[in-house]
Amino acid sequence: MSPPEVTSQQGGPSGDGAATLAEIARAAGVSTPTVSKVLNGRADVAPATRVRVEELLRQHGYSRRRGSGQPSALLDLVFHELESPWAMEVIRGVENVARDTGLHVVLSESAGRLSPGQTWVDGVLARRPTGVILVLSNLDPGQRAQLTSRDIPFVVMDPAGDPGEDVPSVGATNWHGGLAATRHLIELGHRRIGVIGGPGRMMCSRARIDGYRAAMDTAGLPIDPQLIREGDFHHESGYSLGLELLRMRDRPSAIFTGNDLQALGLYEAARELGLVIPRDLSVVGFDDLPITRWIGPPLTTVRQPLTEMAEAAARLVIDLSRGKRPNALRADLATRLVERSSTAPPAATMS
Amino acid sequence: MSPPEVTSQQGGPSGDGAATLAEIARAAGVSTPTVSKVLNGRADVAPATRVRVEELLRQHGYSRRRGSGQPSALLDLVFHELESPWAMEVIRGVENVARDTGLHVVLSESAGRLSPGQTWVDGVLARRPTGVILVLSNLDPGQRAQLTSRDIPFVVMDPAGDPGEDVPSVGATNWHGGLAATRHLIELGHRRIGVIGGPGRMMCSRARIDGYRAAMDTAGLPIDPQLIREGDFHHESGYSLGLELLRMRDRPSAIFTGNDLQALGLYEAARELGLVIPRDLSVVGFDDLPITRWIGPPLTTVRQPLTEMAEAAARLVIDLSRGKRPNALRADLATRLVERSSTAPPAATMS
Repeated sequence: MSPPEVTSQQGGPSGDGAATLAEIARAAGVSTPTVSKVLNGRADVAPATRVRVEELLRQHGYSRRRGSGQPSALLDLVFHELESPWAMEVIRGVENVARDTGLHVVLSESAGRLSPGQTWVDGVLARRPTGVILVLSNLDPGQRAQLTSRDIPFVVMDPAGDPGEDVPSVGATNWHGGLAATRHLIELGHRRIGVIGGPGRMMCSRARIDGYRAAMDTAGLPIDPQLIREGDFHHESGYSLGLELLRMRDRPSAIFTGNDLQALGLYEAARELGLVIPRDLSVVGFDDLPITRWIGPPLTTVRQPLTEMAEAAARLVIDLSRGKRPNALRADLATRLVERSSTAPPAATMS
Repeated sequence: MSPPEVTSQQGGPSGDGAATLAEIARAAGVSTPTVSKVLNGRADVAPATRVRVEELLRQHGYSRRRGSGQPSALLDLVFHELESPWAMEVIRGVENVARDTGLHVVLSESAGRLSPGQTWVDGVLARRPTGVILVLSNLDPGQRAQLTSRDIPFVVMDPAGDPGEDVPSVGATNWHGGLAATRHLIELGHRRIGVIGGPGRMMCSRARIDGYRAAMDTAGLPIDPQLIREGDFHHESGYSLGLELLRMRDRPSAIFTGNDLQALGLYEAARELGLVIPRDLSVVGFDDLPITRWIGPPLTTVRQPLTEMAEAAARLVIDLSRGKRPNALRADLATRLVERSSTAPPAATMS
C-alpha cells in the first residue's frame, strides 16, 4: 500500500485539508504520538524516524490545524549578524509591536551564515513561537517546510538575496534611495560621482547602485566604471575603498556610499588625506543611523525606515499567525533623502 | 490551625528544605494543582487566590526543588531602555554565551521604568527561563520573591542604583576609570578640567565622578564645583552642558564626559563654538563604543568591557541555574584608558 496522497502541497504555506497526523503516522509506520513528538521538536525520537516523518510531512504538505494548541507568546527574531548599530533599530521596532501585543522577542544570530542552523530550528519547533522574523537571513527549503508543517509563519525583512515570490517580506525602496542620493549630488553641480556600494550578492545593494546609474543616465552624465567600487557594508571597506577613490588622479568630487558605516570609513579616509568635507568632497550615506547626526559634519543620508520596517514585519507575521492573508506578500517602505552638512557644490578647481 | 512555618526564608534565595506544594496548598485552602498553576504563571486562577498563594510562597520561602521539571532553553535579558548603541554590545555578549550553551535569548525592555512590569513577570513564570539578566534595571521585592520561589535565578548587570548585597551582579571598575581618565588629562598638563557626568541616582555615574575628584585631589588641584555638571547619559546633555561649560569666561581646557554619547554631544558644542579638538579642548569619554574610533578626531575614552561583562553575567546566571554558588556575588571587570586623538597638552594661551 502506498502512502495516501492527500494534498501534495496544493494547500501552500497554510493549506487546509492536508493529511492528518494519523495518516502521516500510518504512512511512516509509526504511532501517532511519535509524529507528534517530531512536530514538537522533542529530542526522544530516533534520527532515522525523524527524517522519515519530516519527509512525509513535507510530501503531504501537512499543516497543523489552526487552533490545535496555542503557540507560545514569543516572536523569534533572527539576524544574519548583530554587528551593526543597524540591528538596534530593528530590535526596537519588533519590541514595540511585541510589547503592544503581549509577546516577547527571542533573539538569535545566524552567525554570518545565510540561514540559521539546525539547533535554532529545533529550538523553534520546541518553543513554537507565534511567528519568525528573519533579518538579512533566510530559511533553506527544508527549514521552510518544517516551519510550515507546524503552522509557524515567517517573514523576511530586507532580504539579502531574492527571497522568492511566495515568501512574505518587508523591504525599503532601495532603488529610489540611490536615485534620490545621486540626483541631490547632480543638482549641486557634481559630475564625477563615485560609489562605494555594498556586496553585489545583496539585492538591496544592487538596487541602490542601479538607482545611481539611473540618475546619472537620465542627467546625461557618463558612468565611469572606475568610480564604482564594491564594499561589504562595514566601516573598513568605506575607508580602504575611499582611499582608492580619493587617490585617483581625477578623483570624484562626491561619493555615494552604500550605507552609513561606509560613509564613516570614507570620512576617515578624507581626514587622512587632508580633504575637508564638504568643501573638498561631498558624501551621501544610506540608512540614517542615529550617530550620523552627531558626526562632524553631520551626514546627508538616505533614511531607511528600519524601525518602521521591523514594525511592519512584526505586524505581518502576527497577522499571518491569526490566519489573515495580507494584501501583498511584499511591502517596500519609502526611503527619503535627509539633507545635512556633508554635501555642497563642488569647489570649482580650488585644489 | 496556623499555616506550617517550615523555613521562613532561612534558606535564602535557593534554600532547600522549604515548604512543599502540598503544605502551601493546605495553608491557602486550595488544591495542590492550583498552587502549581500559580507557580507556572497560568492565567486560569482567580486573582484573590493568586495573591494568597504568592504571599504564602513568599512567607514560607518556598523554592521549587531543583530538577522538578526542566527550565526552558531560554535566557531572559531585560533592558532599562534599548536606546543606546551600548545595548548592542551587551546583547552580543549574552548571545555569545547563549549560543555556546544551546540557549536562546528573550529580549525585553522595561520601557524606562526601573523594574519590568507584571506582564513581563507573568511571561517569565510561564516560559520558565534558565535565568534572567537585568541591565540597568532591577526587580522589586515582590518580583524577586516570585522568581526565587520558581527557582529562576537572576543577575543584575551594571546596576543603576545599589542592587543590594544579596543580589548577584556584574559591573565595571567605574571609580578607577574616572581616576585614569582624569590622571591622563592632568599628566598632559591640564589644570581646569570639567566633568559632564551621568545622573546622580546611578551609582556607576557617581563612582566615575568620585574617581575624578580623587585624581584632582591627589594631584593637589582645586575642585571647582562650577565645572561639574550632571547630565543624563544622552547625546543632548553632552551638547547643552558642553555649551554651558565652554561659554564660561574661564572655560576648562579639558572635559571628562560620563560616557561616549555625551562626548559626541560635546564634540558638536565645540564645533558650534569654533573650538578645535584637541587643540582648544581635550575630551575623554567612557564606554569605548565602536563608533568612537570613527569620529573625527577619534575619541580617547575609558573602555568599559560591556561585551565581556554581559558574558560574565550570562555565565553567572547559568552557573546559578545549575546550583553552583559563585565565589562572590559581585564582580567588577577592569576598565582601561584607550588613548586616541581627542586629548593633547593645553594650548598655553593661544586663544
